[in-house]
Amino acid sequence: MGREVVARRLTPLVKETGADAVIVNGENAAGGKGISAQICQELFSLGVDVITLGNHAFDKREIATYIDGEPRLIRPLNYPPGTPGAGSYIVRRGGRPLLAVVQVQGRVYSPQLLEDPFRAVEGEVERLRQSTPVIIVDCHAEATSEKQAMGWFLDGQVSAVIGTHTHVQTADEVILPGGTAYMTDVGMCGPWVSVIGADRELVLERFLTQRPVRLEAARGPAILSAVLIEVDEATGKATGIQRILEREVATEPLASLFGRW
Amino acid sequence: MGREVVARRLTPLVKETGADAVIVNGENAAGGKGISAQICQELFSLGVDVITLGNHAFDKREIATYIDGEPRLIRPLNYPPGTPGAGSYIVRRGGRPLLAVVQVQGRVYSPQLLEDPFRAVEGEVERLRQSTPVIIVDCHAEATSEKQAMGWFLDGQVSAVIGTHTHVQTADEVILPGGTAYMTDVGMCGPWVSVIGADRELVLERFLTQRPVRLEAARGPAILSAVLIEVDEATGKATGIQRILEREVATEPLASLFGRW
Amino acid sequence: MGREVVARRLTPLVKETGADAVIVNGENAAGGKGISAQICQELFSLGVDVITLGNHAFDKREIATYIDGEPRLIRPLNYPPGTPGAGSYIVRRGGRPLLAVVQVQGRVYSPQLLEDPFRAVEGEVERLRQSTPVIIVDCHAEATSEKQAMGWFLDGQVSAVIGTHTHVQTADEVILPGGTAYMTDVGMCGPWVSVIGADRELVLERFLTQRPVRLEAARGPAILSAVLIEVDEATGKATGIQRILEREVATEPLASLFGRW
Amino acid sequence: MGREVVARRLTPLVKETGADAVIVNGENAAGGKGISAQICQELFSLGVDVITLGNHAFDKREIATYIDGEPRLIRPLNYPPGTPGAGSYIVRRGGRPLLAVVQVQGRVYSPQLLEDPFRAVEGEVERLRQSTPVIIVDCHAEATSEKQAMGWFLDGQVSAVIGTHTHVQTADEVILPGGTAYMTDVGMCGPWVSVIGADRELVLERFLTQRPVRLEAARGPAILSAVLIEVDEATGKATGIQRILEREVATEPLASLFGRW
Ligand SMILES: [Fe+2]
Ligand SMILES: [Fe+2]
Ligand SMILES: [Fe+2]
Ligand SMILES: [Fe+2]
Ligand SMILES: [Fe+2]
Ligand SMILES: [Fe+2]
Ligand SMILES: [Fe+2]
Ligand SMILES: [Fe+2]
Repeated sequence: MGREVVARRLTPLVKETGADAVIVNGENAAGGKGISAQICQELFSLGVDVITLGNHAFDKREIATYIDGEPRLIRPLNYPPGTPGAGSYIVRRGGRPLLAVVQVQGRVYSPQLLEDPFRAVEGEVERLRQSTPVIIVDCHAEATSEKQAMGWFLDGQVSAVIGTHTHVQTADEVILPGGTAYMTDVGMCGPWVSVIGADRELVLERFLTQRPVRLEAARGPAILSAVLIEVDEATGKATGIQRILEREVATEPLASLFGRW
Repeated sequence: MGREVVARRLTPLVKETGADAVIVNGENAAGGKGISAQICQELFSLGVDVITLGNHAFDKREIATYIDGEPRLIRPLNYPPGTPGAGSYIVRRGGRPLLAVVQVQGRVYSPQLLEDPFRAVEGEVERLRQSTPVIIVDCHAEATSEKQAMGWFLDGQVSAVIGTHTHVQTADEVILPGGTAYMTDVGMCGPWVSVIGADRELVLERFLTQRPVRLEAARGPAILSAVLIEVDEATGKATGIQRILEREVATEPLASLFGRW
Repeated sequence: MGREVVARRLTPLVKETGADAVIVNGENAAGGKGISAQICQELFSLGVDVITLGNHAFDKREIATYIDGEPRLIRPLNYPPGTPGAGSYIVRRGGRPLLAVVQVQGRVYSPQLLEDPFRAVEGEVERLRQSTPVIIVDCHAEATSEKQAMGWFLDGQVSAVIGTHTHVQTADEVILPGGTAYMTDVGMCGPWVSVIGADRELVLERFLTQRPVRLEAARGPAILSAVLIEVDEATGKATGIQRILEREVATEPLASLFGRW
Repeated sequence: MGREVVARRLTPLVKETGADAVIVNGENAAGGKGISAQICQELFSLGVDVITLGNHAFDKREIATYIDGEPRLIRPLNYPPGTPGAGSYIVRRGGRPLLAVVQVQGRVYSPQLLEDPFRAVEGEVERLRQSTPVIIVDCHAEATSEKQAMGWFLDGQVSAVIGTHTHVQTADEVILPGGTAYMTDVGMCGPWVSVIGADRELVLERFLTQRPVRLEAARGPAILSAVLIEVDEATGKATGIQRILEREVATEPLASLFGRW
C-alpha cells in the first residue's frame, strides 16, 4: 500500500523537486511488520538511495543476514554491539561523498532497551564529518521531547534531524539557528483510512476489548508524506526545508469501499 | 510565555477568522506545571470560552476546588468517579447552546491510570447531542494510534476530534468521511527555542545524565499553534479545518539571547 | 512442565494439608502462552476447583468461547464490559457456598489498559458477601505497590488477597490486622532452570540483542509454588497462611541436561 | 524508620550470624527519597561496609558530590559515563581484598534510561576478579525476568546476585548450579503497615484519584529483610544462602496507632 504510492509518485516527485538523493524509512514496508529483502530491492530500483529501519528492523528474520550485505539498508545506530548491519551510510556520486545518513532510535516509550542515542550519534557524526559535512539524521522515536532534544543537541553539527515512527507528519519544519533542518516527524506513506496504516476496525476492536486482536494492513486511498531538504554542500548547513503531504482522494465513494458512511 | 503570545494574538486572530468561540488547552499554562485560578481568569477575560486540561490538570492544588465553581474549566472526562470538575461544557449564546466541548485523556503511555476514553466519550457525546449537534472533542493523548482510533470512533458523531498533549502541531488536518474534522495534535503556544516549552539545556542535561534535573520554562520567541474549525450549526458536520502556526522571529539575535550560536 | 508437577503433587498436597478447595492460576499453562480448553479440563479433573487467568487470558482464541460455558474458569474482573467470561466464581459443596474467588488485574506496567481494579473489586466483594464471607482475591499484577495497596484496601473485607503474575514467590505472607491473609506473589509451578518459565538462553539472547527472539518453555526440574490459607467459615477471617515451595532436584546432573556447568 | 530497625538489629544479627561484611541498599533511607550524607555516615558507623543505591540515588542533590569522596557508597554501574561515584567497591580487611560489591540497575520498567546492565556487569566482574573471586552483585530492578536473567548470566562468575528495589522479599533463595547464590529480591527494612514504606492511606488516595498526592513515609512496627550469604573465599563459590525476615509486632494495638481496625 505504502509501497504502491511510493512507486507511483517517487519519480515525478524527484523530477519536480530536483532532489539529489532519496531516503526512505522502510521499517513497516512489509504490511506494517518490518521489511523483506525483496521490498528493499524494489525500493532501491525505484531510485531510493538509503532505507532506514527502526524498532521493527528485524521483524522479518531474513533482514538479520541481508543487511550485512546491503550497506544502503541501515538500522538504528544505538542497537547493542554485535547487531547486524550498520547505523549509517555514505551516499556517493562519482566516487565522491554526497551525503551521509545516520539513524538513531529514541528510548522514551521504546519497546527496545537501547544504548544512549545522544552519545551514540555524537561520536558517529564526528566520524562522518571526516567524509562529508552533509549529514541527515533519522531520529526514530515516539516522544516529541526526545526528538526536539535531539534536534537541539545536533543543531549546527548536521544538516538535518528528521523524526520518524509516529506515522503522522508534523507541521513544525524549521531551520534551527545553527543551520540544522528539523521536523519532529515526517509521517507515513500508506493507507490513510486506517490507524497508522492498520485496519481501523481491528485497531478499535483491540482498544475496546483489550484482547489480542491480530492487526492487518488497511487498504483504500493513500497518504504520501515526505520532506525536501536543501543543503549547502560546502558547509552542510540547511538552506531549506519543505513538507510534502499528498492525500489521495478515493476513486469511488469510501462507503462502497468500506461498507460504512 | 505561552500566555503572552495568546494575550497578544488572540483578539486579532478572532477578528481575522471570525471565530465564534475559543477553546484553549491550559494544562501547562503555569510555566509547564498545571494552571492556576488566576491564569484561568486571565484567559477567560481574553475571550476564551472553554479551557481544557489533561494529565497536569491537578498539578496546582487550588484547581481541585476552583474547578467545581468554574464550569468553563474542564478536565478529562475519564478520570475516576468523584474527580472534581466535569469533563464537558456547553457554550451558550443568548441562552441557546452554541457548541459543546468534551475532553478525554488517552491511556497509552499515560502517567495516569484512567477509565476507558472510548466508552466514556461515547456516552457523553450521546448525552450532549440532546443539547447540540456541534461537539468538539479534545483528545489529550501521546500515541498517534490512540488519537486516530478516537477520530474514527467518533467520525460522524461529533464535529471535531482534535488532539493535544505532544506540544507539536501535526499536518494531518482532514475532514473524515463522516463529517468530523480531525487533527492529531494542535500543538503548543509557548517558547519554541525549547524542548516542548522547557529550557532545552536542562532537558538535555536530564537526558544525558538521567539524574533528577529540575526543569524550567524556556524563554525567547514564541510559537502559536491553533486550529480553526468551521461547522454547519444545523447538522454539526464540519465544513472546514485550517491549521494556524505562527513562529515568532527573535527581535534580537538568538546568540545574544541564549549565549550560543 | 508446570502441569506435570501439579499433576504429580496436587493430590498428595491436598491430602497432607486437608485443603477444602484448590485454586490455580492457569494463564501460562499452555507453554507460557495462555491456556487451552483441554488443559482446563485436565486441571479440573485433578481436583482443581477454580482456574484464574490474567494478562494472557485470551492468548488462545478458543478461550473466548470456552470461558462462557465454564464458570469455574475466571478472568480478571476489570476487563472491559462485554469481555467473555466472569471475574468471580462461587465454589459450592452440597449446594451451599464454600467460598468465592475473584480475580482482578493490576494496571501499573500492565500490557492491557483496564478498568480500575480497586473500584471493580469493591463492588464485586460486596455482592459476593451476600453469598459467603469467605472470599479469596487473586490480584494479578506486576508492581508490589499496587498489590500491597490492594491488600490494605480489602483488609477486613475478604479472607485473602494473594498476588500472581511475577512467577516468583514472595516471603511476606501475613494476616493483616483486619483478618485478611496477604502475600504479594504466590509464584510459579514450572521449570526453575529458566527465566520465569522460559528457556533462559533465549531470554538472555533477547535481552542482549533486543531483537525479536521467539521464546520457548524451558524444561528440566520444576518448582512448585503454592499457599495454604485457613479461614474461619463463619466470619471469613483468615486464621492461617502458609507458604509452600518445593524445588525439585534434577535426577541427573544439570550439566548433562543442559550441556553447561 | 528503616534506619531505626537497622540501628537496633544490625549488631545482634552480625553477632548471631558471624557475618564478615555488611551491605545495605540505602536508596530510600531518607524517608523513601534517596539518602543523605549524614545517613550514610550513621550507617557506616553502625558497621555497614558498603551502601548501594538505585533509581533514587541522586534524589538528594548533595549525593552527587558526597559520593565522589566516599567510595563505600556505590551507585548502579550502568549510569551514563560521567555519573558521579562508582558502580563497585572492594571491601578490604588488613589491606587484603575480602569481597567486591557491584550494583547494576535493570532497564525493564525503569524510570531511568540506562546502559545495558548485562554488558556493563560482565566487564566489571572480569576486572574485579583480578582482585578477588568473592563478588556480590546487587541487581536493582523491577521485573523478575530481568533479575533471573541476570542470575543465570552471572552464574559461575560471581558469588551472589541479589535483587533489590521491589521492597518485598522473595522466597526463591537458591544456589544456582554454577555456584552463584541468587534471590530475586531481598526486601525492605521499614514500616510494614505501609505500601512499600509509604503511608498506605496516601498511596490508596493516589491509586483511587490518580491525582498528584504527596506521599509520606509510614510509621508503626517495622519489617527487617536481609539475606546471609556464605562464600568459599578461595573459589568465590557460594556455599550457603539464608533469608532473614523479622516482622515486628506492634507494642500497642494497631487500631490505637492508626485509628482503624
Ligand atoms: Fe513505523
Ligand atoms: Fe517505528
Ligand atoms: Fe501539555
Ligand atoms: Fe499533557
Ligand atoms: Fe504468568
Ligand atoms: Fe501474568
Ligand atoms: Fe527502593
Ligand atoms: Fe529502587
